[in-house]
Amino acid sequence: MASEKPILYSYFRSSCSWRVRIALALKGISYDLVPVNLIKDGGQQFSAEFKALNPMQQVPALKIDGITISQSLAIINYLEETHPNPRLLPQDPKKRAQVRMIADHIASGIQPLQNLSVLKQMGEKKMEWAQNCITSGFQALEQILQHTAGLYCVGDEVSVADLCLVPQVANAERFKVDMGPYPTITKINKALLELEAFKISHPSRQPDTPAELRA
Amino acid sequence: MASEKPILYSYFRSSCSWRVRIALALKGISYDLVPVNLIKDGGQQFSAEFKALNPMQQVPALKIDGITISQSLAIINYLEETHPNPRLLPQDPKKRAQVRMIADHIASGIQPLQNLSVLKQMGEKKMEWAQNCITSGFQALEQILQHTAGLYCVGDEVSVADLCLVPQVANAERFKVDMGPYPTITKINKALLELEAFKISHPSRQPDTPAELRA
Repeated sequence: MASEKPILYSYFRSSCSWRVRIALALKGISYDLVPVNLIKDGGQQFSAEFKALNPMQQVPALKIDGITISQSLAIINYLEETHPNPRLLPQDPKKRAQVRMIADHIASGIQPLQNLSVLKQMGEKKMEWAQNCITSGFQALEQILQHTAGLYCVGDEVSVADLCLVPQVANAERFKVDMGPYPTITKINKALLELEAFKISHPSRQPDTPAELRA
Repeated sequence: MASEKPILYSYFRSSCSWRVRIALALKGISYDLVPVNLIKDGGQQFSAEFKALNPMQQVPALKIDGITISQSLAIINYLEETHPNPRLLPQDPKKRAQVRMIADHIASGIQPLQNLSVLKQMGEKKMEWAQNCITSGFQALEQILQHTAGLYCVGDEVSVADLCLVPQVANAERFKVDMGPYPTITKINKALLELEAFKISHPSRQPDTPAELRA
């Protein structure tokens, strides 16, 4: 049972799914991917079948070791505890706190405000709303990173913070946020996108990526 | 230096501040509280002084061991690692995953959508918006808890999930959400509110609680 391959329920464009795909790639965990299309048929995440699997009706969800976990950071923490190499949290508790602070700032402070279900309710104001949420979050993030960053968000080791950063920058670009005021974010994002794990997990290279968006 | 008392920047009614106050109380960590009034003077969190301390311009923030941490779950995780007793995460990785899934569902999936800064932008629709966010989040939460709960959210030990649950239920009550459909949430909330750490950290008993709201 424990040797069954994990199954990741994912949507190519979901930034939270991408976080988990990066973690799986970095840790070298092979998995099967089941696409859940958040748009088609009014959203496949609302089907009775998917709801039974994940009552939160969101992706990502990971079936692993006989359980199903949802919430991207909960999944990543589970992977970190069960597959500790390479580590995605620094050893020093103070640096770990910085990593978590940045990850939570993105995962609780930015992404939820510009996710699909909120934007659907914004009608015409959708684009402006998303831009405002991201801009205000990035202003704080840029300042924080100026203190914590090395090559990546916290020092020179890839961490959970980086797994949140790259998908959030992709959202910013999709919503045409001017990245000019965020040189540190931009630099780190670029460095991370050079890494193989970030490339193969990219939304443009998923089994459910529509042909016109493929890399 | 390490023996300096931690300073918690808190607002009596902030549900995220309450999460941290519960953790500090459970772990028996004494601290000084500096109130940050999120309403007065257009929001004291926007002052230059506070922004220098926490660029996210939010409470809670905790000054401890020479660093300042923001984001409630990052703070709680730091406390868990530096003051492990009593533990707020179960030993078993699968149960830890359940705890984090529930905590993140509240911290990323519910609270951010009904926090002060979002509601300010909703004008007349404020109440309805908050009710919808909480209702939809609680429907999923009720189902999850039916599988995981014992006395508390996950089994019979108080965990980080419980630190998120109680303040979120208080928000639900403030926004007059009908709790009828959520018997499991209601039962766990009631059991937790009997515990001393949840009582002394309650919004009705803070130094900055206005006289008319005091317990």
